[in-house]
Amino acid sequence: MPERHLKFHFDYVSPNAYLAWNYFRLRSRQPRLCIEPVPVLFAGLLDAHGQRGPAEIPAKMRWMNRNLVRKARAAGVPLNPPFSHPFNPLTALRLSLLPELQQSLNSVVEALFRAVWVRRLDAGDPAILHRLMEELDLDATRLLEQARSPEIKELLRQTTARAVDQGVFGVPTMVVDDELFWGYDDIANLELYLDGHDPLTQQDVKAWSSVLPSAGRKADR
Amino acid sequence: MPERHLKFHFDYVSPNAYLAWNYFRLRSRQPRLCIEPVPVLFAGLLDAHGQRGPAEIPAKMRWMNRNLVRKARAAGVPLNPPFSHPFNPLTALRLSLLPELQQSLNSVVEALFRAVWVRRLDAGDPAILHRLMEELDLDATRLLEQARSPEIKELLRQTTARAVDQGVFGVPTMVVDDELFWGYDDIANLELYLDGHDPLTQQDVKAWSSVLPSAGRKADR
Repeated sequence: MPERHLKFHFDYVSPNAYLAWNYFRLRSRQPRLCIEPVPVLFAGLLDAHGQRGPAEIPAKMRWMNRNLVRKARAAGVPLNPPFSHPFNPLTALRLSLLPELQQSLNSVVEALFRAVWVRRLDAGDPAILHRLMEELDLDATRLLEQARSPEIKELLRQTTARAVDQGVFGVPTMVVDDELFWGYDDIANLELYLDGHDPLTQQDVKAWSSVLPSAGRKADR
Repeated sequence: MPERHLKFHFDYVSPNAYLAWNYFRLRSRQPRLCIEPVPVLFAGLLDAHGQRGPAEIPAKMRWMNRNLVRKARAAGVPLNPPFSHPFNPLTALRLSLLPELQQSLNSVVEALFRAVWVRRLDAGDPAILHRLMEELDLDATRLLEQARSPEIKELLRQTTARAVDQGVFGVPTMVVDDELFWGYDDIANLELYLDGHDPLTQQDVKAWSSVLPSAGRKADR
């Protein structure tokens, strides 16, 4: 079977992206998958779609922490409470977009995800990021300087904007062909799709997209 | 094993609540479960927590329709595009709260969910609701009159407010003991909990609840 290409949209602030990253890293099923990590700013996705993130809804956050631990244990994935959350992921995301790191991107993404969700390090702190790059035998000082350049800042903005244009509203979002799968909980559907057993038909998509609203939130009161 | 009690918070506008309802209706596993349907106004939950619903985020709605069809097919549950969506669920919810229907509530909830998500009927239309009550051999005229009473309107408000107080932020939300499970996708975790195999410990809850933010959305810019 030919290799399939999967775009993995993520932000280090997302624990569900971390769980999904672990899933794909350990995945050994057919068909073979080429994973392209696409760093995007989750806060930028929220802004673009006018949403609140779970961290901005205390009741949801309480549920989410419990849900995360349950899913991580069930999957045998190490997960610890982060140093702080939410934290500022901008420098970590920008590092992950540096052209010279693209060849070894998987190990960089892995190191940064682990720093946040296993090692409880403050990935919002440039000094910590410096140390993490050194652990990977990379030229930390130069990389962090590059990550601060206007070009890389613009690249993160553009990458996030492109994801929004493609319909990405949260992380993780996995895109195969033009099909979009959102969240750790959508992976079972993605696997069916990859196996050629997607139960969804074009007829379904057409029928559902023609449903119209008959009430909105104001009208309900 | 003793019978367990599960509060099933739902709104007829939620297709994931419909899928979860089917799951529990067909569920035959041990331990035995006593399901108490709790009608709540989803729009009221959104208001209380300052959230937008999926229907208010077009990109999320596009994903959600696809996700729903996939989950319904995988579970062998009939699901059709609704007559309209979102629709005004107030009268359907109020009917479901009528004291005299509580003895036969399961069949009422089943009939209303099926009307929306299988039969493509307009459950926002009192004339349709009248017909549905008649199909159940109920005194439709009297029930619809009761559903319009100030007492029942107030009961729906109170039921929704109580759910909010208990941390409910979406539907379906299943509450067992004081543990809250949200969404069709959280059912696997609920089953582990019911089986006494919840991997979550009180130590986890404590550790995660002490995580503090170091950045917010404004600070990120």
